[in-house]
Amino acid sequence: MSAYQAFDNEMAIEYINNLGGIFPPDAQLSCYEFGDGNLNLVFRVTDQHNHSVILKQALPYARCVGESWPLTLDRARIEANALLRHGKVCPTHTVQVIHHDSVQAVTILEDLGHLRILRGELNAGRTFANLGRDVARYLATTSFYHSDFYLSAVEKKSLVQTFTNPELCAITEELFFDDPYQDSERNHYPDALSPEVSKLHRNKALKLAIAQLKTRFLSSPQALLHGDAHSGSLFVDDTTTKLIDPEFAFFGPIGFDLGSFIGNLLLNFCAQHGRINEPSKRRDIHTYLLRTIDICLSEFEQQWLSLCAQQGKDSTLLVPGYAEHFLNDVFQDAIGYCGCEMIRRTIGLAHVSDLDEIQDVKARLRAQRLALEVGEQLILHARSCHNKDACYQLIISVLQ
Amino acid sequence: MSAYQAFDNEMAIEYINNLGGIFPPDAQLSCYEFGDGNLNLVFRVTDQHNHSVILKQALPYARCVGESWPLTLDRARIEANALLRHGKVCPTHTVQVIHHDSVQAVTILEDLGHLRILRGELNAGRTFANLGRDVARYLATTSFYHSDFYLSAVEKKSLVQTFTNPELCAITEELFFDDPYQDSERNHYPDALSPEVSKLHRNKALKLAIAQLKTRFLSSPQALLHGDAHSGSLFVDDTTTKLIDPEFAFFGPIGFDLGSFIGNLLLNFCAQHGRINEPSKRRDIHTYLLRTIDICLSEFEQQWLSLCAQQGKDSTLLVPGYAEHFLNDVFQDAIGYCGCEMIRRTIGLAHVSDLDEIQDVKARLRAQRLALEVGEQLILHARSCHNKDACYQLIISVLQ
Repeated sequence: MSAYQAFDNEMAIEYINNLGGIFPPDAQLSCYEFGDGNLNLVFRVTDQHNHSVILKQALPYARCVGESWPLTLDRARIEANALLRHGKVCPTHTVQVIHHDSVQAVTILEDLGHLRILRGELNAGRTFANLGRDVARYLATTSFYHSDFYLSAVEKKSLVQTFTNPELCAITEELFFDDPYQDSERNHYPDALSPEVSKLHRNKALKLAIAQLKTRFLSSPQALLHGDAHSGSLFVDDTTTKLIDPEFAFFGPIGFDLGSFIGNLLLNFCAQHGRINEPSKRRDIHTYLLRTIDICLSEFEQQWLSLCAQQGKDSTLLVPGYAEHFLNDVFQDAIGYCGCEMIRRTIGLAHVSDLDEIQDVKARLRAQRLALEVGEQLILHARSCHNKDACYQLIISVLQ
Repeated sequence: MSAYQAFDNEMAIEYINNLGGIFPPDAQLSCYEFGDGNLNLVFRVTDQHNHSVILKQALPYARCVGESWPLTLDRARIEANALLRHGKVCPTHTVQVIHHDSVQAVTILEDLGHLRILRGELNAGRTFANLGRDVARYLATTSFYHSDFYLSAVEKKSLVQTFTNPELCAITEELFFDDPYQDSERNHYPDALSPEVSKLHRNKALKLAIAQLKTRFLSSPQALLHGDAHSGSLFVDDTTTKLIDPEFAFFGPIGFDLGSFIGNLLLNFCAQHGRINEPSKRRDIHTYLLRTIDICLSEFEQQWLSLCAQQGKDSTLLVPGYAEHFLNDVFQDAIGYCGCEMIRRTIGLAHVSDLDEIQDVKARLRAQRLALEVGEQLILHARSCHNKDACYQLIISVLQ
């Protein structure tokens, strides 16, 4: 196969057989496709001993927005290379790449089927003690080693070129920063939320803050980001945390990933009001989510400062106090992007099941209103937080 | 000629004859080389009717730092393409490209020999009424049309790749932000300045500010800059202002060019203390330089806001008030980079004749000390300026 072809089950098996080396020569392979099919095909290929790998193939369009949003297959190259680079510095929390083929836009990955996707687990009220620490380590390590503190400017400029990802960035630019703050056909929300949405559209201070956050998203290549670090991109169990699916990877503001992750925890926080009726159980998951955010911020800071001290290379940036100053900007960005994520997941194109699957209509509306309100307040007050603790306190105060 | 060869006079003439179309077929060409030879050969090719063009050819090394600093010829491509892009939106103030050949690293340019280089004119005490306005128009126009306010993110990312200029940026990174604030073999200054230099090296607040300015230089691709907008890159007469030599062009913080230009005016301001003895004459040139800075800042702001209003495309960034907020960051950056330029041109590798050619040793030292002091104060207080007028007032106050 020399030209791109979307695979079916048989083609996926044939591809792996032709490749060789993935399974033993006598392997008898079976296969099924189980992706949500929005952007990619995802096959599980298993042999007679129940060993398996994942074969992921990019589709040349985004199905959720119809054929009208064609997408370059180049994102498969970007995703595989982001995983390879992140995996090199943080193998513990990065899904492993076994093979990549940019012509077929195919990546073969370790099968994480023994783990569960974080979003579903949180929705079911299950908690993971290491989550905040692990995600912080992944984000701090992968961003530090791709930042100006570590890379030479020449190396970094070359990587920025390699990871230029205009089409997938454009999706984020429009869905994150444009649509929710203006009338757009892609927005969707219940009529009952219209007053809140109109209020957002009239809030001039909010729109100024959004312009600033969009500018930094567009023009602040601080490090190689995951680019889509939401609860659906995280595989977990009690001892393991793995990030998957960085097809939106690009060099951007470090706070973007941190904010996306925290935003998804806070969306779940808001949703639990409509999901768990028993007050003590709800309190437990709320406490867990806040504790996870607190640990994530602290661990991120500690890891970054420790990496600067041990691995930092740019003597001008390593002047005492500058890393702390830099991180404070990262935390302010994170709070802002966290707020954006909460708003766009409530009224924009791509929603979260945390909120949308709340059965009771009134409870769902209350949770959605809370998510909008929390998101708005975080965006408005992010720049007043002058350290990590102030960021955490802001989150606590807007939830009350 | 298929492989690169450094030209001599005859080869330059032969090249132009072979190219055709530059001069009439019967032209009899003469040629001489008059570049300073640090980075490039510069030939003037003239016919029997005294029509002339400039042929500029990049050399594969930077002569001023010895053969130890080899430079890619790719900078000739970047320079020619920056001139073409800047010339398209601001032809009045951009030298015209007639032909470019990236194999020979040759660019043929209109001859601006009827104009004079600004640095020499200022050194001689000559003034140009339109200078501040013209440079502001060039900087505002070329930056606006290459910013997120005008370009789509997809267009801009593609241009950022085209204008990735790692080697020449590395020169600026080291000479601007590293060397002057630490011991470096490339620094040079009279022994008598050692106490002032030591004081700079011990100033922690200054080094924090430098780290921030370097970070923005490394990772803030706001627009396609000239990259080297000093008084030696400006050709002027009473009615004309033309920018030349953007081989350092890259996507960076807009305030960098503005700060470089203002920094060179302030270096001249400091130098005039040692150049002109007659108080009233010195006062005149001082008044002129400050007035030029004031006009430049005002015109830059006005042009940018007017371009945003008339030509802006990104609706999220065009929310009322955001352009003003964005410009304030640009002005703060400009003041900081202005201070960097003053310091590095006084004690770093590449000096300015404004200071170095002051005959009287004591007067020269006084001017150098003033330049260092003014540069330091501008860097330290840049972030406290919350609008253009505050920036100008800061400049006035540190000069007193």
